[in-house]
Amino acid sequence: MFAELSPRYKPLTLETIGDYVHSRPELRDIFHENDEFDAVEVGDGNLNLVFKVWAKADRKRTVVFKQALPYLRLVGDSWPLPPDRARIEAQALTIHYQLVPAYTPKVYFYDPDLYLIAMQNLDDHLIMRKGLSQGIQYPHFAEHIGLFLARTLGYTSDLVLDYRAKKMEVARFINPELCKITEDLVFTEPYRYTERNRFDKELEPQVLALQADESLRCEVAKMKTKFMTQAQALVHGDLHTGSIMVNQTDTYVIDPEFAFYAPMGFDVGAVIGNLLLNYAAHEVRTPDPEKRATFRKYLTDTIIRLWQVFEREFAIIWNQVDAINMPKGYQQHYMQGILQDAAGMGACKMMRRIIGLAGVEDIRGIPDVRERCIATSLALNIGVQLIMKRESFTRIEELVETATACRPSYP
Amino acid sequence: MFAELSPRYKPLTLETIGDYVHSRPELRDIFHENDEFDAVEVGDGNLNLVFKVWAKADRKRTVVFKQALPYLRLVGDSWPLPPDRARIEAQALTIHYQLVPAYTPKVYFYDPDLYLIAMQNLDDHLIMRKGLSQGIQYPHFAEHIGLFLARTLGYTSDLVLDYRAKKMEVARFINPELCKITEDLVFTEPYRYTERNRFDKELEPQVLALQADESLRCEVAKMKTKFMTQAQALVHGDLHTGSIMVNQTDTYVIDPEFAFYAPMGFDVGAVIGNLLLNYAAHEVRTPDPEKRATFRKYLTDTIIRLWQVFEREFAIIWNQVDAINMPKGYQQHYMQGILQDAAGMGACKMMRRIIGLAGVEDIRGIPDVRERCIATSLALNIGVQLIMKRESFTRIEELVETATACRPSYP
Repeated sequence: MFAELSPRYKPLTLETIGDYVHSRPELRDIFHENDEFDAVEVGDGNLNLVFKVWAKADRKRTVVFKQALPYLRLVGDSWPLPPDRARIEAQALTIHYQLVPAYTPKVYFYDPDLYLIAMQNLDDHLIMRKGLSQGIQYPHFAEHIGLFLARTLGYTSDLVLDYRAKKMEVARFINPELCKITEDLVFTEPYRYTERNRFDKELEPQVLALQADESLRCEVAKMKTKFMTQAQALVHGDLHTGSIMVNQTDTYVIDPEFAFYAPMGFDVGAVIGNLLLNYAAHEVRTPDPEKRATFRKYLTDTIIRLWQVFEREFAIIWNQVDAINMPKGYQQHYMQGILQDAAGMGACKMMRRIIGLAGVEDIRGIPDVRERCIATSLALNIGVQLIMKRESFTRIEELVETATACRPSYP
Repeated sequence: MFAELSPRYKPLTLETIGDYVHSRPELRDIFHENDEFDAVEVGDGNLNLVFKVWAKADRKRTVVFKQALPYLRLVGDSWPLPPDRARIEAQALTIHYQLVPAYTPKVYFYDPDLYLIAMQNLDDHLIMRKGLSQGIQYPHFAEHIGLFLARTLGYTSDLVLDYRAKKMEVARFINPELCKITEDLVFTEPYRYTERNRFDKELEPQVLALQADESLRCEVAKMKTKFMTQAQALVHGDLHTGSIMVNQTDTYVIDPEFAFYAPMGFDVGAVIGNLLLNYAAHEVRTPDPEKRATFRKYLTDTIIRLWQVFEREFAIIWNQVDAINMPKGYQQHYMQGILQDAAGMGACKMMRRIIGLAGVEDIRGIPDVRERCIATSLALNIGVQLIMKRESFTRIEELVETATACRPSYP
């Protein structure tokens, strides 16, 4: 089914990792000949082993190894996945580092035999989803992610790349197996009965009503088709708040193994949709109305601000485009298209986290079933409104107003 | 710049062709060991050598060789083009033959060292553009081309192909250099001043007005972006009436060297746009009003009929699509999208033939400058109306009515 594994391929273990570190000349700037190591395996994803390694003598000298497993960890080896996705991830990280080094972990090397990426350890940072669920605000996030999105999307598109370079990049980032996961889990399964869907049975009436809504399903099918056919820019492809590491000063985007050429709105929408999932979770996570309103204002201000930064940074890219070939009105049409795609695709990414196989901690981590249903019901209602009204959006404020006008329908 | 030519590469000549025929085992079903040959070079295109070869003893035993030159013949070797396009053409012809053998010349073999395709000789057929310019009707053409379009586009799309097969095909048909020709000549140069544009100076006021129309240029930019990013199906990529061989019973589609994954409407629009260019030409080519009306009715009936056949045959493909995942309304949306793309892209293909580098015989072959300007003016007006009104089209009749309501603006 896939290319043969190298005879050198084997999963690293805590026992073998020290020898592996010493075997790599690329790490000699970090580690010394006689170093001994502390190491832990921290992969909480479903696709990979992730090791953190520190020199015992000095824990500031450290590296992360991410190694692709040839199957999806969540469901065991029944769902084989090509480890070539590690190559995709290494190449995408390299491009991101060139475009936005401040927000991308540095790649030290890629080992094609082991499907292993050696990269910067982000120990001083937390997965953003966890922070947001605890109600922590990240004041610089909007500025950082807006810039990240504008540069990584704009500079990999036809607006900037030479016609030949762009098409070669499309070919290099053909990524069928990981796209298929998104096609199924984001755009297909939430909208029909499948055994893999997972939602509280108390929510079933709302889910069944949504699955019976042909006009909603038609809009979802349009988004799926766009995702499958529109090679607009190199997207991260999985840019939810679990792929973002933050603290009060820094933002890092990790894990672009789903990268391929797709609509820019898919990444922009992933960020917005996951902020809105968190917004929905705080319906019950923060019972105090004043605190809730404050944190939600932070979330919606972040959405507005990240879009403003995205537009501002993208405008710099537009200034590089041959003006003679750029008719008046086209830039506005293009940017509005990204906004509307972000609304539609972000909505799909919200709804799948409620109904589909892979949930998110913000929502599924709410222990009380009634409270969880209130939050999920609100998230579904926001998703439906965003996708159905997306074509009317000309400004980010309209997207936010549509979302914040929603209420849970769970009693 | 491109892959190295094979050391075996050299252009065939009338002197070397006999030895080449005898060297190919694939032709032993056609030719005999002692055959001598008649051969002519008939390439009237700009990119290739085309040889017809007959056994002297029996002219029914015949083959065509099409060999890619490593430059664009029209402008000499100042515009190098990768001969790899011959591989693309051979692979596209092979797919077309599998899907619509009745309308595709049979490929006997592809020689990758010579970038040469050996294929069926269509001696009993005329380039359709020539026939139409002479006022010849082809009663079966609409039926044939409608079927050709539905099958070649439908069966190479995500509607039918497995997710992995589709993406591998996208990669295999990455075709940057030939796409660049279309991007420049169809979607860019006609809408600005360039030295390569060619139109009668008498038409300059209308051309300058068109090039100054920002709303038109904005719609053209949308079409260009779609062409460059939307990998919907394997399109022929150059399906004008010069790529179609016809007689009173048969239709063959040739020359798919521009093939790549693009919007289906690009091919459908190429056929419609070129029929409408011919419609415009008969404004002056057929002075007798009754004869003109009759031939034009044939042309517009052909457009309507080919779309009806396309829809009918495409419906068969829709029946193969997983119904559970196919919401009500989506099929109609999809088909309407093809119609609107066909209108917009067909319009661009019309206008470029008037303003841009590469003209068509229907129009540029009109000897009298005033008559030529009347026809070109009409063609431009049809193009502008089709692209500007395309989003209102829900039925093919609306497209045709919009076109036939146009008049020349040349005095």
